[in-house]
Amino acid sequence: MKALYFDQQLLLTDCPEPETRTGEALIRMRMAGICNTDLEITHGYMGFTGILGHEFVGEVIECEDARWIGKRVVGEINLGCGSCDYCRRQWQRHCPNRTVLGIYKKDGAFAEYLTLPIENLHAVPDTVSDHEAVFTEPLAAACEIAEQVHLPPGTSALVIGDGKLGLLIAQVLKQYNCEVTLLGRHRNKLALAENWNIRVCQSAESLPMQEFEVVVEATGSPDGFATAIDKIKPRGKLILKSTYAGGIHTDLAPLVIHEIQLIGSRCGPFRPALHLLEEKRVHVKEMIHDEFPLREGLKAFQAAGAPGRLKVLIRNE
Amino acid sequence: MKALYFDQQLLLTDCPEPETRTGEALIRMRMAGICNTDLEITHGYMGFTGILGHEFVGEVIECEDARWIGKRVVGEINLGCGSCDYCRRQWQRHCPNRTVLGIYKKDGAFAEYLTLPIENLHAVPDTVSDHEAVFTEPLAAACEIAEQVHLPPGTSALVIGDGKLGLLIAQVLKQYNCEVTLLGRHRNKLALAENWNIRVCQSAESLPMQEFEVVVEATGSPDGFATAIDKIKPRGKLILKSTYAGGIHTDLAPLVIHEIQLIGSRCGPFRPALHLLEEKRVHVKEMIHDEFPLREGLKAFQAAGAPGRLKVLIRNE
Repeated sequence: MKALYFDQQLLLTDCPEPETRTGEALIRMRMAGICNTDLEITHGYMGFTGILGHEFVGEVIECEDARWIGKRVVGEINLGCGSCDYCRRQWQRHCPNRTVLGIYKKDGAFAEYLTLPIENLHAVPDTVSDHEAVFTEPLAAACEIAEQVHLPPGTSALVIGDGKLGLLIAQVLKQYNCEVTLLGRHRNKLALAENWNIRVCQSAESLPMQEFEVVVEATGSPDGFATAIDKIKPRGKLILKSTYAGGIHTDLAPLVIHEIQLIGSRCGPFRPALHLLEEKRVHVKEMIHDEFPLREGLKAFQAAGAPGRLKVLIRNE
Repeated sequence: MKALYFDQQLLLTDCPEPETRTGEALIRMRMAGICNTDLEITHGYMGFTGILGHEFVGEVIECEDARWIGKRVVGEINLGCGSCDYCRRQWQRHCPNRTVLGIYKKDGAFAEYLTLPIENLHAVPDTVSDHEAVFTEPLAAACEIAEQVHLPPGTSALVIGDGKLGLLIAQVLKQYNCEVTLLGRHRNKLALAENWNIRVCQSAESLPMQEFEVVVEATGSPDGFATAIDKIKPRGKLILKSTYAGGIHTDLAPLVIHEIQLIGSRCGPFRPALHLLEEKRVHVKEMIHDEFPLREGLKAFQAAGAPGRLKVLIRNE
C-alpha cells in the first residue's frame, strides 16, 4: 500500500499492509490531517521511524466484532498496555508503556490502511462529514483544557497563538462562556476568529498585564511563554500546550509570587469533541487550506509547512 | 529604638519608633526568626531598604481597639490596600498594591517595635510559647500547600530540600496522611525528620522516576527543580516554593507530555498554622539552632547564614 514513511527523511513509498493483532481493527483511511507535530517529527522530534499521521477518519474493513465493519470511525491515538495503573484508570494516554499512532512506535494514518485497538475507536455520526471528523483529534486536545480546569462562566481567557490548535482552543473556551481573547500574528487567521465572534489582538503590548484568569500558551515559542506569564492574573491558570525545542530560559519566580498554576495539557477526550462537531458548535472547515491525494503526500507536507498555512488534508482515493 | 536596618548593607542602628496609622496596632517585638528570604534580601533580593524581619511574635502596646492591648500576637505579613478585587476576596496576599512586612515597602520585625493593621493580627494561645509562635509564619507557608492542592489520604509526596521550610512542609503533609519522603543533603536535618517518623533520603538517584503524586520543590536550586520533574508521576502536582536567582534553563516538555501541574506557592493561612502549634502536632523547637538578643542582631545574621544551620532567633530583651 502507499504510505508516507519517515526514516531520517519523508518518503512516499510502498509498505506492506498492516497486520491486525487481537482486539484490533483494520481501517481504510479516508482522510487525514497534517499536524504541527508531524512537521516537527520530520525535523527529528520523538526520533520516530515509521508511517506518520495521527489525525484521521476512516472506515473499518476488518474487525473481530462484526458490528464495527463498514463503520466510519475516528480513533484515539494512545495505545495503552491495558494492565498498568494508568490503563486501569482509563488513562491510557499516560500509560508508561504506550505507543502513539504515527508518533511513537506505531505506524500512523498517512497510508491506505492502518490498525487500532477497537477500544480506541469512535463511530462518526452520519451528519459529521469527513472534512469535519478529521478535526476530532486536535479538537479533543482543545477540549482537554475543560477537562483539566474548572471554567466558571465569564472566565477571562487569553489564547496565545493563532495556529490550528489556538483557533480550536479559542472556540472551545467560548463554548464554556469564557470571555476569550485570541492573540496572534497572522491577519488571515485572526480574521477567521473574528468571523466567529472571538475578540482578537495582534500585539501583546496592547493587552493589560496580569489581567486574565486563564491563559493558554499555544505558540510553541518561548516568547509566547513570556507573554503568558506577563498577562496572567495572580492565582490564575496557565495552560501549556506548547513544547519548546531545546528548552527555555525563564524566571519562574512570578509563578511562586503570584501563586500561578502552570498546567501541562496534551491529548484530550474524543467523545465531547465529536459531540461539538455533531452539533456544529465549532468551525473547522474554514481552517482547511488545502487538500491532496495520498500519492501527492510529499506535496501536502510542503504545503503544510508554508507560512500562514492552516490545515492541509490528505485523502485516500 | 534598636533595629536591624538594611540599606545596601545590614546595620544595627537607632531608628525612630514607628507611628501607628488608623487601623494599626503598635507591637513590641518579643521574638523574631531569621528566614532565608531575609538572607536573600541582604544579597539584594527585592531591592528592599528598611527594617528587616517578618517572622515574629509580639505584644500589642497601643491599639484603637483596647481588647488587643497586652495580647500576645503573631501577624500576617501582607498589607492589602483594602479596596481592590483581591482584598475584597480576602486575598490581601495578592493585592497588587500590597506592602509586605520587612520585605517590601514596610518596616519589619527586627526592631523593638513594629506596626501592623489590626486585621493582620492573630492572638497566640497561652499554651503556645514564644519559641513556638515565632514559627507561625513559615508554618502557614507550609499549610498553603493543603489550601491549594487536594491531598487525599495516602498521597505519595516527595519534599525536596531539608531546610527550615522543607522540614515544616514534610510535617504538614504528614498531618494530611500523605506518604512523605524528604530528600535532602544534610545528615543533621534529615536525622531530625527521621525522629519525626518521616522517611528520608539523601540521594535522588535512589528514588524511582515518575513515582510521586505530589512533589514539593523547596531547595532554591535549579537541580531541585530538575529532580522534581524527574520524580513526579504523570498528572502529578509539583508545588514550587523556590525561586531561582537569575532564572532557570529548563525543558518544560515533560510538563506537557505528562500533563503535570506546576503550582506556585507562597504565603499561607495563619489560623491553621496556629492551630497545629496549639495542638503540638508539628515539631518546631528542635529546629532552633541559635538565639541572640536584638543588640547582637548582626551576629544572629552571621549564624543564620552558616551552612547546615536551621532557625536562628532574635529576642527583644
